[in-house]
Amino acid sequence: MTIVAPGGCVGILGGGQLGRMLALAAARLGLDCAVYAPEPNPPASRVVARFVQGGYDDLAAIRAFAASCDAVTCEFENVPAAALAAAAESAPVRPGPRAFAAASDRVEEKRFLQSLGLAVAPWAAVEAGDDPALFEDVFGPHGAILKTRTHGYDGKGQARLAGPGELAAAHAALGGRPAILERMTPFKAEASQIVVRRADGAAAAYDLVRTVHAGGVLREATGPGGFDPGAAAFARRMALTVADALDYVGVLALELFVMDDGALLANEMAPRVHNSGHMTPEAAPCGQFEQHIRAVCGWPLGETAFHARGVMTNLLGEDALDWERLAAEPGLHLHLYGKDAPHPGRKMGHTVRIESL
Amino acid sequence: MTIVAPGGCVGILGGGQLGRMLALAAARLGLDCAVYAPEPNPPASRVVARFVQGGYDDLAAIRAFAASCDAVTCEFENVPAAALAAAAESAPVRPGPRAFAAASDRVEEKRFLQSLGLAVAPWAAVEAGDDPALFEDVFGPHGAILKTRTHGYDGKGQARLAGPGELAAAHAALGGRPAILERMTPFKAEASQIVVRRADGAAAAYDLVRTVHAGGVLREATGPGGFDPGAAAFARRMALTVADALDYVGVLALELFVMDDGALLANEMAPRVHNSGHMTPEAAPCGQFEQHIRAVCGWPLGETAFHARGVMTNLLGEDALDWERLAAEPGLHLHLYGKDAPHPGRKMGHTVRIESL
Repeated sequence: MTIVAPGGCVGILGGGQLGRMLALAAARLGLDCAVYAPEPNPPASRVVARFVQGGYDDLAAIRAFAASCDAVTCEFENVPAAALAAAAESAPVRPGPRAFAAASDRVEEKRFLQSLGLAVAPWAAVEAGDDPALFEDVFGPHGAILKTRTHGYDGKGQARLAGPGELAAAHAALGGRPAILERMTPFKAEASQIVVRRADGAAAAYDLVRTVHAGGVLREATGPGGFDPGAAAFARRMALTVADALDYVGVLALELFVMDDGALLANEMAPRVHNSGHMTPEAAPCGQFEQHIRAVCGWPLGETAFHARGVMTNLLGEDALDWERLAAEPGLHLHLYGKDAPHPGRKMGHTVRIESL
Repeated sequence: MTIVAPGGCVGILGGGQLGRMLALAAARLGLDCAVYAPEPNPPASRVVARFVQGGYDDLAAIRAFAASCDAVTCEFENVPAAALAAAAESAPVRPGPRAFAAASDRVEEKRFLQSLGLAVAPWAAVEAGDDPALFEDVFGPHGAILKTRTHGYDGKGQARLAGPGELAAAHAALGGRPAILERMTPFKAEASQIVVRRADGAAAAYDLVRTVHAGGVLREATGPGGFDPGAAAFARRMALTVADALDYVGVLALELFVMDDGALLANEMAPRVHNSGHMTPEAAPCGQFEQHIRAVCGWPLGETAFHARGVMTNLLGEDALDWERLAAEPGLHLHLYGKDAPHPGRKMGHTVRIESL
């Protein structure tokens, strides 16, 4: 297991807020970071030792970038496989390409989760021209949701459907791209299980987080989530089963539905630090960003037991213009991501409110 | 009062670990930082949007640097007055030059503290060629300590003397530079009071911190320090008296001796974030680095009440080579500064152990 010692350099593919928070965590540990991203001035580029602007299709540039790093990781799951392979020629890439293959195509992801025995909601792959009548079984009393197989996030590339009659038009609106249709399940809660695993198999898990979404976007996450301890323990085992199967290195998030009868359905996984874990730096001894860096660098994992309840609220779009009032709220932890344009729905920052357990 | 909003840029003069931790705190708030320092690759330069390498005597470069920032601050107190004045031509410099004038010359500092009515140990200014017999009154039963008036830190430029007979040789060893002789006081504890103040006079204070030095270098600091509440309240008032008198903006540390009879003597002040406050990010809702950035940028000040006891231990020199064992200690917060050469006594990092109050 390669160890990246203090003074070493961690390369991050992607320049968004997750990369920024990874870099801040790495800096506390005496590590340098370098960022590779296509945008000219992304949030993560302004807190690192080196920034390389380049496309994910410029494999020579990615190879050179990785060669200047002691390990490479990603801050989002849609890095093309060819880019990951190019980076891996020059430096260890953690987590490995297998995790990205499993997470970047929603159909492959469902098949993978089911292959491990995890329960998921009924689903079907949809191709342009498919007969809508074939999908009647996928629709439940609450309808179904159609999502593009790849490159969707935060509710983008999604449409809710009441019945098969709406499928053709909705699919056309998504450009007819390969898609997945998933039954809308009447869950009583949404949850997120965040685990971290090292190359040697050592792993740790945070207590199950309770999440609240609106319009496909995470709005609030509370950790610990106050779930039944047995269910929380089972959620940990579900996520660790996924991580072990992928020989995973780093932080992994598994999003779950808690059904009315208590059963846990796997919804989707993210091979990276995750918005639902943003309360961990304040509410646990070692936050998810530092954990990911520790795992990627082969360091001992940190302690995950929450010492407080952290309630994380996303600041979307113009929410962030309210920064001065938020900064004045006693004890509220304010995070802003250094993005200039508060487009509606854009993740601009978050707050963490701390409550005693 | 100028306000630097998210997206603005804070300029930091100095590139050491204090600048690095200031920059990390600013990044969390969505602010960019720029660093100006004479060294080629200092710790703070690797976590900021922009680094300018330049001397403190290159006033044109400092003017240009400040012009690219919305506010400028310092991470050490020995920035020359001419450099501060040059920066102030282009951007607000916070804290202002007055605080540096008061803190960078030990004789001026004692006079200033005494002018406010604060008690200090007996002292005298020493010039080359002075008759040692003139200083007999400064020596107590524990002798005295000779320090250069300027540019001393962490026990550098200091010598302990048993009596006046040792003065001439010790002063020659310090190059005969203008010096101060201070009585060694048999204190029962050392303490540090950290306060933060905005331009409009709003201020906040952490509970009094207990410090332990060895060889003139801080080894351990515990906050809250567990002092008599009355004495802790008085220490806050001492430091706020100093901050108000300087119309101070930012974090200020006042180091104190707690005498056997309980009296508090002012030892020295630092017009900046301070090593004795390194437990505040983990043990209080808003740490000293974020407080300094908030004050410099005209933001509301954060909450200072410790929610836990934080025990900070400095990692000096080769202590930091033990990083892997320290990273494995459950719940221990490890900070490394990104310095390559672990010279004996060099501050390489620190740890914070959290205990319940």
